[in-house]
Amino acid sequence: MTWGELLGLIGGGLITIGFIPQVLRVFRLKSAYEISLPFTSLFLLGATCWLVYGVSLGLMAVVLWNGIAIAFLVVLLCAKLKYGMKKRK
Amino acid sequence: MTWGELLGLIGGGLITIGFIPQVLRVFRLKSAYEISLPFTSLFLLGATCWLVYGVSLGLMAVVLWNGIAIAFLVVLLCAKLKYGMKKRK
Repeated sequence: MTWGELLGLIGGGLITIGFIPQVLRVFRLKSAYEISLPFTSLFLLGATCWLVYGVSLGLMAVVLWNGIAIAFLVVLLCAKLKYGMKKRK
Repeated sequence: MTWGELLGLIGGGLITIGFIPQVLRVFRLKSAYEISLPFTSLFLLGATCWLVYGVSLGLMAVVLWNGIAIAFLVVLLCAKLKYGMKKRK
């Protein structure tokens, strides 16, 4: 593994791990009014494209982290649809 | 350009464009209480790693979109620091 590939692994890990506090925050507050629905849906669509991109070029870091990120994004999208439509009291 | 590279370009574009409504939403609501600070900071750090990863492997799509995403993330982080610490009224 080159240092470049290592950076890709670390970078993807940081982004993917970053989704955990975001998802937890929305569920703890039971509100996702400030989360943008286009942001969440475009991100989900984009990460899916990147998963295929990673598979097609055999980029392990891209495949690994986008796969996990997609799972978090589905949860965030569900939270947005459940909690995101009305203002928090 | 292969179809895989094209998918990478489209995917990165979707994610990066998705940041625009998110940033606008936070500024329009003048609140970023529900946005997680660890999410924003880890994402910024991760995207910076990916920029270097993209440069080191010569992946044009990775470099282009991470570069733009970093700019949006800096704005989102500033918004979080400005509007994110107290609850929206």
